[in-house]
Amino acid sequence: MHVESVSIDFDKAGGLVPAIIQDYRSGDVLMLGFMNSMSFAETQRSGEVVFFSRSRNKLWKKGESSGHVLKVRELRVDCDADAVLIRVEAVGPGVCHEGYRSCFFRALESDGQVKITEERTFAPESVYGQQQEKKA
Amino acid sequence: MHVESVSIDFDKAGGLVPAIIQDYRSGDVLMLGFMNSMSFAETQRSGEVVFFSRSRNKLWKKGESSGHVLKVRELRVDCDADAVLIRVEAVGPGVCHEGYRSCFFRALESDGQVKITEERTFAPESVYGQQQEKKA
Repeated sequence: MHVESVSIDFDKAGGLVPAIIQDYRSGDVLMLGFMNSMSFAETQRSGEVVFFSRSRNKLWKKGESSGHVLKVRELRVDCDADAVLIRVEAVGPGVCHEGYRSCFFRALESDGQVKITEERTFAPESVYGQQQEKKA
Repeated sequence: MHVESVSIDFDKAGGLVPAIIQDYRSGDVLMLGFMNSMSFAETQRSGEVVFFSRSRNKLWKKGESSGHVLKVRELRVDCDADAVLIRVEAVGPGVCHEGYRSCFFRALESDGQVKITEERTFAPESVYGQQQEKKA
């Protein structure tokens, strides 16, 4: 079924919406970034994920330094259009600047401890060198 | 492997962090809400998801009116501790106040059209009546 159109509600939170990045094959959630209307438009146009970096206050093409780009396979929007879910093919061994496939590699356990739930898939220093491609 | 502890960075975005809700069996992303430190603590304590509603400016226990509570199965935090991923067992036919299993039931297609990608799983008016339990 098709409906006419949807406008992403960028105004609700000062120009930004959270963008969940999910591996389209495994269903694993890889990371969360933020997008403004320009980065969202550029993501749609190019077919590769472009965030807005809150710390650097500018557009941030994921993979610009690492080569680990995120190819858009499907773009979803939630019921009140203030969050997007982007199902991707993630190029390279992982999206996390700490060397993991997913940024969500730590679980909080009920006893207060933190458990690393994944194995490292690459050495960050070999990909990013001194200049880390941090999250926004 | 265990590491010592992690502090969620609530200060980065004015006291709130985005919380991705994922079905722990299917891997489907069901919704995104926001949490402040109090709602996060209450989620950990009770084992059921409690958001902070930005529109109502107060804690919002998911399922408080619908009964569609979200039972926490695993709580993950990302690399820079400014987003959480909560893997849940979702009680009931769906989490979306519009009657869908997931709030992300619409895909944006490359031609600009919007496609409904899921079937409705319940009639919202039978669950929420006149008083809708909206997202935050």
